[in-house]
Parts: sequence; C-alpha cells; structure tokens
Amino acid sequence: MNLPKYKDVVKAHERIKPYIHKTPVLTSKSINEITGCEIFFKCENFQKVGAFKFRGACNAVFSPRLKELEQGVSAHSSGNHAAALALAARMRGVPAYIVMPENAPEIKINAVRGYGGKITFCKPTNKARESELEKVNKKTGAQEIHPYNNFNVIAGQGTCAKELMDEVSSLDSIITPLGGGGLLSGTCLAAHGLNPEIKIYGVEPKGAADACLSLKTGKIEPSLNPVTIADGLLTSLGTLTFPIIQSHITEILTVNENTIIEAMFLIWERMKIVIEPSAAVTLAAIIENNELFKNQRVGIILTGGNISISQASSYIKKEPG
Amino acid sequence: MNLPKYKDVVKAHERIKPYIHKTPVLTSKSINEITGCEIFFKCENFQKVGAFKFRGACNAVFSPRLKELEQGVSAHSSGNHAAALALAARMRGVPAYIVMPENAPEIKINAVRGYGGKITFCKPTNKARESELEKVNKKTGAQEIHPYNNFNVIAGQGTCAKELMDEVSSLDSIITPLGGGGLLSGTCLAAHGLNPEIKIYGVEPKGAADACLSLKTGKIEPSLNPVTIADGLLTSLGTLTFPIIQSHITEILTVNENTIIEAMFLIWERMKIVIEPSAAVTLAAIIENNELFKNQRVGIILTGGNISISQASSYIKKEPG
Repeated sequence: MNLPKYKDVVKAHERIKPYIHKTPVLTSKSINEITGCEIFFKCENFQKVGAFKFRGACNAVFSPRLKELEQGVSAHSSGNHAAALALAARMRGVPAYIVMPENAPEIKINAVRGYGGKITFCKPTNKARESELEKVNKKTGAQEIHPYNNFNVIAGQGTCAKELMDEVSSLDSIITPLGGGGLLSGTCLAAHGLNPEIKIYGVEPKGAADACLSLKTGKIEPSLNPVTIADGLLTSLGTLTFPIIQSHITEILTVNENTIIEAMFLIWERMKIVIEPSAAVTLAAIIENNELFKNQRVGIILTGGNISISQASSYIKKEPG
Repeated sequence: MNLPKYKDVVKAHERIKPYIHKTPVLTSKSINEITGCEIFFKCENFQKVGAFKFRGACNAVFSPRLKELEQGVSAHSSGNHAAALALAARMRGVPAYIVMPENAPEIKINAVRGYGGKITFCKPTNKARESELEKVNKKTGAQEIHPYNNFNVIAGQGTCAKELMDEVSSLDSIITPLGGGGLLSGTCLAAHGLNPEIKIYGVEPKGAADACLSLKTGKIEPSLNPVTIADGLLTSLGTLTFPIIQSHITEILTVNENTIIEAMFLIWERMKIVIEPSAAVTLAAIIENNELFKNQRVGIILTGGNISISQASSYIKKEPG
C-alpha cells in the first residue's frame, strides 16, 4: 500500500501555503495553571472554512494536474470536509459535487452553497450516501476526495502539526482529536518527521471509542452507534490512516462527554475563542489525565470552530458546577 | 484644565509596551460582505484581563515615581477596570485596593482576587461606593485611579487606536463603544494625531444615550437609570473625557439592544472569537447605519471578552431569526 510519508507533508505544505491561513498558536496562563502543564494551542478554528479540513482538501484539489480534475471533485459529507472541498475546488476553478443527507443542518448547507458547491441531497443513511455519490461520480466524471482515507488529504492535514512544531520548539507531546484518523495520521508523519522522540496522542469520546478498540484488536473496528456531542469524531478508521497511526501512536485516550463540555467552555471563557465540541476532546484528555502531562510542553490542535451559538447554549445545563 | 494630547498617547505606548499584549487585528470576509464595508477588528478581548482597560490602568500605575505609589492604588469598580488595576499594581509591586458592590458577580470578584487585589465590599449604591472608597484611601494612603476621568488612563486607552492605525493604513473611520469616554477620548487623540482626516464615531446603547444628549446640550448629562445589556457603557462622561470628545467627534451613534445581540453572535459565529455585549455596539452601529459606512475602510475596537457562557446563552432567545 502506498502510504504518505513525512516528505509528502513537506511537499503538501509548499503546495497549499498560498491558499491556507497560517493559523496562530495561542497560550493561556490560566489554563496552564489549571492543568499543570504548558499548552500550545494551534488554532485551526481560524483556518479557512473554520476548520483544519481545508488543509487536506486543498492539498487533494491542488495535487493532480488540472486536466485530471476538469470534471470536478466530489465527496459525501455533512460536515467541515464538504465546505472545505467546495472552497478548495472554487479556488482551483473546478466544480465540487457534494452529497449531503437531507437532514443536514441549514448552516452547513448554506456554507457549502456559499462556496459554490453543487449539492445533491440523499436519505441520511450510509448506504444512500454511497450509492448517491456513485451516481453523481458516474454522471459527472468527478474525482472523489474521501474526507480522510486519501493519500493527499492525510499529507495536507499533517501540515498543521508541522506549522505548530516549526513555531514552538521542544514539545514533549502533541495531541489531536481522532475520528477517521486523517488529522492524527498526518500529525504522526509530521511530528515524528521533525522529532522522533515526541509522544503522540489521539483522543476520542468514550461514546465513539472504535479507534481505541481497533488498536487493541489490531484491525479496523466499525464505529457502531456512536453517541457523542463531538460530531466530527463519529467515523471509523480508514485503510490508509490505521497503519500509520498503529506504527506511530503513543496512546489513544478516551474522554467523557461532561469533560468535553467543560473543556470547550473553559477555552471559550479563558481564551475568548469559539471552538466546536470535537476540538475540545484534546484539552478534556489533559484534564482527565493530569499526571500524564504534568510539567510537559504539550501541543494541541484545536481543530475547528463551527458551532452555532444556540447549539453551544444547549450544552450549558450539562456544564458541571 | 490639563488635557492629554497625542504626544501623551505616544509616551504612554512606550511606557506600557513591555506589559501589554499587542493584540491582533482580524478581518472577516463574510462580515465584510454582510455590511458592505471593509472592517478591521482590533481584538482587545485578547488583551490581558480580557479588555482594553488594562492599557489605561497600566499607564496610570507605571506613570508616577514608585515612591509616590508606595501606599498603593485604589478604585471603585465592579468591572474590567478593577481587574486591570489589580494586575497592573501587582506588576509594579504595589497594593491595589478595590471597592466592589457586595452583589458583584463572583466571576469578577475572583478575577480581582486572582490578580492580588484587596477587596472591600459595600452596598451597591453610588453613595456607598464613594464613601467606602474615601475611607479606604484615608486609611491606606492609596492613590485613586479613576476608571476613565484620569489623564494617564485616557492616554493609555489611546494606545489601542494607535496600534490599530500603525498596522492598518488609510482607515476612513474608526468606531469605539462609549461609556465614560476613556477609550473614545484616547482614540480621538491617537486617531487625529495620526490622521486629521479620519472620522471618529462613538457608539452607545439607546438605553444609555447620555453622551449623545450631552453633545447636544453642551454639558455633561447624567446617566439616569440606564437599561442595556452592554454593562460596560452605563456611566456618564467625565470632565476630562467630555471636552476631548466634543472637539474631535464626528458623530455619536445609538443602537438597539437586538442589534447588539445580533452583532455579538455574528462575531462569535463568523470570527470564532468571544466578545462581550459592550464590545458589540460598534458592529451594531454599522449594521444599523449601513449607508454611512458603505465601501469604507473602518477600524473597530472590540473592547473586551469578559462574559460567561451562561450569561451569553441567556440572550439567545432574543436573537433575531
């Protein structure tokens, strides 16, 4: 199998630099005091489309020759990958066909439309999404860009950890959320490419802990009926992401829903930035595993900020204290 | 009367630079599209203590010789000035005595305590605050630092507009919130010092429009029973801030509560940053006075981000749409 390597992350970075934001790295004295470690937050909530997903989509859309993409690109996604792919395609000047479940939130539908994506709606089942996407691909000749199980997407997501480590020296650990593993596998390549000693952690919600199980059983376990507010972390690992993660990861940590909410609002209130629940699992993991990170310099990727205020406020009652 | 001038802002900036954050200037394509102008947001929500108030407090605390301040500094305040003064005093190594109403929110009491401020509680009336502060000053020999009607505070607040205009060229207009006028008067000095042609706007809630009235009558009008969620903008103008504003201001704009909430959440959702209601009046003014700013390059000072998530969520039901 042709897996991406560190040099592919470096190439991806050169390729997408003109299109992405170099997002800031923020720190918070008060969160450092609370957690007992020194945290460097890479703020991909400030990335274009409000999420790191733009990096991978951008690399996938700008890698092939233009001729190969004339018929456009496609994906099924109701989340940040859909908007990211639509914007990247618009920048390259090719059409983007997005298959979305008919019950997708209006805010996400509008985002994809706003970036010029052509939407086909389908029933909200895996089967319907896949068969609808196949139909779209056949009809248009579009090239499918999988949200994470794609060589160029993985290399693109790796640019985020690379930027963080280029800017902040001597990190002991780096932590990312873990859903399909696109970001984590890219982070593995970048982080160990730059520093073979760094510890790499992936975090998933206890209610969607398929990757933790996969590492134990040694094969990709399906994500069965996941239940979590971290709606970006519902999917199972892919055939490309799994082996990379397997050979690099220090540990997969799992976190509770209450801690995700606590961490999310801690970041909102102390750092004055808006992040989505999926992004908060990383700080949640530090809160729940205090001793593991004590006195370390820890890099965290805050993956995105796409949450409506009314959605966020629906979690308030669950906030501890 | 000895009023501060542009050169005092320049001096203040040199003085406080080692202590303050040089806050970022952010832009938002989607908010530009919505408003039809090009907005540059100076993000003082990322300033120390989460508000621009730290600039003025810092300048006031670092201006006198240390000997003059040995007995400490004092203020009555339940808001951002209290925390700002406590932190500035701690940095200089002198005590800060803060008189706070006994019903002040716990989050603000904890902030002041966290910065080492010594709190005296009083009944929540103007009279009680003033007499309590007088007692504290007599007992301790502390020097009172008024939150806005103070030469050095005004000069310090002006550094914010100076930084913005040093970074962003050719602004047509600059807009700040308006409460006691410390920020606006400092902004007047900085902005016209750097560009005599720039238009300067102050914004207050319709429910606390005493400054607008003061400009009309030509004398400082009291702020009688102000009603607004912008709790940083309740006070009336001071004898130092009023004449500066009078001689520089283009216009005072007043805005509705609904628009303040709309503007606040627009910034949260599109820019992924947390701001407090008082900071949102500026964008609210652009939304309500669309034609006035059409196609302009507009600088806005986002004054602070100190709001609890539960407070913010209590405004959701009032959110339009």
